[in-house]
Amino acid sequence: MKCKSCRGPAVVEVRRHNAAFCRNCFVAYVRGQVEKAIRRFEMLRPGQRVLVAVSGGKDSLALWDLLLELGYDAAGLYLGLGIGGYSDRSGELVRSFARERDAELLEVDLRERYGFDVPTAGREGSRSTCAVCGLSKRYVFNRAAIEHGFEVVATGHNLDDEAATLLGNTLRWNTEYIARQHPALPAREGQGGRAMARRIKPLHRLTEHETAAYAFLRGIDYVVEECPLVAGNTQLRYKDAIAVIERTSPGSKAQFFLGFLERAAPLFRAAADPSLVECASCGQPTTGRFCAFCRARAQILGVRLGDGPAERPGESAEGLASELPTEVLPVELYGPEPERAGARK
Amino acid sequence: MKCKSCRGPAVVEVRRHNAAFCRNCFVAYVRGQVEKAIRRFEMLRPGQRVLVAVSGGKDSLALWDLLLELGYDAAGLYLGLGIGGYSDRSGELVRSFARERDAELLEVDLRERYGFDVPTAGREGSRSTCAVCGLSKRYVFNRAAIEHGFEVVATGHNLDDEAATLLGNTLRWNTEYIARQHPALPAREGQGGRAMARRIKPLHRLTEHETAAYAFLRGIDYVVEECPLVAGNTQLRYKDAIAVIERTSPGSKAQFFLGFLERAAPLFRAAADPSLVECASCGQPTTGRFCAFCRARAQILGVRLGDGPAERPGESAEGLASELPTEVLPVELYGPEPERAGARK
Repeated sequence: MKCKSCRGPAVVEVRRHNAAFCRNCFVAYVRGQVEKAIRRFEMLRPGQRVLVAVSGGKDSLALWDLLLELGYDAAGLYLGLGIGGYSDRSGELVRSFARERDAELLEVDLRERYGFDVPTAGREGSRSTCAVCGLSKRYVFNRAAIEHGFEVVATGHNLDDEAATLLGNTLRWNTEYIARQHPALPAREGQGGRAMARRIKPLHRLTEHETAAYAFLRGIDYVVEECPLVAGNTQLRYKDAIAVIERTSPGSKAQFFLGFLERAAPLFRAAADPSLVECASCGQPTTGRFCAFCRARAQILGVRLGDGPAERPGESAEGLASELPTEVLPVELYGPEPERAGARK
Repeated sequence: MKCKSCRGPAVVEVRRHNAAFCRNCFVAYVRGQVEKAIRRFEMLRPGQRVLVAVSGGKDSLALWDLLLELGYDAAGLYLGLGIGGYSDRSGELVRSFARERDAELLEVDLRERYGFDVPTAGREGSRSTCAVCGLSKRYVFNRAAIEHGFEVVATGHNLDDEAATLLGNTLRWNTEYIARQHPALPAREGQGGRAMARRIKPLHRLTEHETAAYAFLRGIDYVVEECPLVAGNTQLRYKDAIAVIERTSPGSKAQFFLGFLERAAPLFRAAADPSLVECASCGQPTTGRFCAFCRARAQILGVRLGDGPAERPGESAEGLASELPTEVLPVELYGPEPERAGARK
C-alpha cells in the first residue's frame, strides 16, 4: 500500500477514508483532524490555557501531545484513582511524559483529597465501579480547572467512545443525555464566579485505532493494559455492536456520531435545557439539591448529607443531615457517562 | 420452568419479561400484546375491514390468524414476487391458510400486472434486490387496498424488524425516515379520493422469537426458508448488532423501539412533515414528480417516464418522456425500508 498523500510506503490504513498513510503523513492527518475539530466547534483560542485530563492511556497522552505540538498552553491533570498497580504504572507514565516535554502536571489523589478510592467506592456505593469512577473524574477535573484558573478542560474521548456513548443513550432514548452529548460544552457561571469550565473533546473525529497508531508512531509510552475493574462495562458491548456494522460498512461509526452532531443534536437540544443550581454541600453546579458526587461520596463514606453548612472537600463529612434526594442526575460534565453504560450492581 | 400465569409446565420463555408460559397462556399473552398495540394506537375499529399483507412467512400468517381470532374482518393479500420455487411454496401456504379458515384472499402477480418480477428488478434496476422488492410491496399493498375499498392495511413487522429499521435509520440519523417510523400511519386523501390507506403494524410489540413460537403453537404452516435473494441484506446486520446487546441486557431491543415511540418520535415528527403530491405517472402519492415505484419500474423495463398522459399500470409504459428526477425519495408506505438497509448494487 502507498501513502495517500506522498505515495511513499504506507504504515497505517484508515479504512473508512479508503486511505493509507506513511508515518509523517499519518501524523499530519491526525493533527489535521484535531485542528478541524477545534476550529469547527471553536474549542480553543490561540494562547488559551487548557487543562488536559490524562489517565496514562493512549488517548489522553496523544491528546496532550497533539495540543502541545499545535502550540497550545496545555497542562496535564492526573487523578489518582487508587486502583493498585494499574494506577501506580499509569501515574508513572504520565509523570515521565510531562518531564520529557517539560510540561506542567497537576495531580489530585482521590483518597487523599476526598477520602475514598475507586475500589472502595465500587464496594461501598450503590453505583457500579465504572459509574462512580466516571462521576469522580468529571467532578475532580472540573473542580481542579476552576481552582487553578483554567477556562477549558480537554478530555481524550475518541470517536469510538463517543459513538458507544451515543448508542447507549439512543438505545434508551435518554433524550436529556443525548441533548448534552457534544464535543464542546460551554462554561457556566455560578453565584461565586465560574462554576463549570468549558469542556472539549478534540479527538472526537479520530477512532481508537487511529489514536493508538498515533501514540505508537510518536513513541508515546502509554499504559496498554485495560483497567482491571472494567470487566462487564456495557460501554464495551456498545463498541462490539458498532463493530458488527463497521466491519461490513466502514464509516458507519463516523457517520453515526458526526451525522448526529449535524442533523439530530439540534432537535434534542431544543427540547432540553436543564437549569443548574449550586450543590448544597460543595457548591458545584447540579440540577438537584446535592450533586451526584457528594451523594455518592456520602454513601461510600457512610455519612449524612443535609441541611448543615456547605461542606468543603477535605473537611469532615460527618454530622450532616440525611436523606439522598431522588432528584434527577446532575448534568454530565464529561462523557462518556459510565453510569449509564455500566451495569448497576 | 412454570407458566407465569397458571403455574403449569411452561413451553416458551420470554426473557425480557423474565417470564415463561404454557401453550394456552402464551397464546393469550401474544393476543394481549396485539390488543394492546391496537388499542394504544387506535389501529382498528371493531368491524372495520382490514387487508393483511401476507408473504407466507411466520409473521404475516400469525398476524392474519390473530386478527381473525380477535374477530376482525381481515382479508389477506398475497403478492407474487416471481422468486422461483420460494414464491411458489409461499403462495401455496397462503392459499391453504385462507382455505382452512375460509378467509378472503386477494392475489396480485407482480409480473402479470406490472411487467417485471423481483429477480429481474434486481438485475436490471439500479436498486438492490431487497430495495426494489420492499418498494414494490409497499406500492402494491396500498394500491390494492385502495382499489378494493380497504381503509386499513396491516403488515406483520415485528419488534425485531422495527428495532433493526430504527437502528439503521438512527445510525445514519436520517431524520425524515425516523419521523415516519410509526406503528400506525394515518390514511391520506388525494385529489381523487383516498390516496393512502391507514397502515398498521399490530405485531410491533412482539419479537421474532415470539411470533415464531406463536405460529408453531397455533399449528400454522409457514414458509420456513429465508428468501434466497436476502444474502447480504444490511437489515440482518442491524439485527446482529442488536443481538450483541440483547444477549447481556434482555429487554434492550424493546426499550429501544418502544422508548423511541414514547420519548423521541415526537421530536422527529415535529421537525418533518412532507407534503405529498400525485405521481405524474400513476397518481399514487409521492413527494416528487414520479413515485419511486414508477421510477424503478421505468428503469427496469427500460422505458421513459415523462410528460405524456398519466400512465396506468397494465398499459404500455413505452413512449413516455425521459429523465429520472433526483427528487427526494417518496414517503415510506411500509417499513422496514430495505432500500435504506440494503447495500446498493
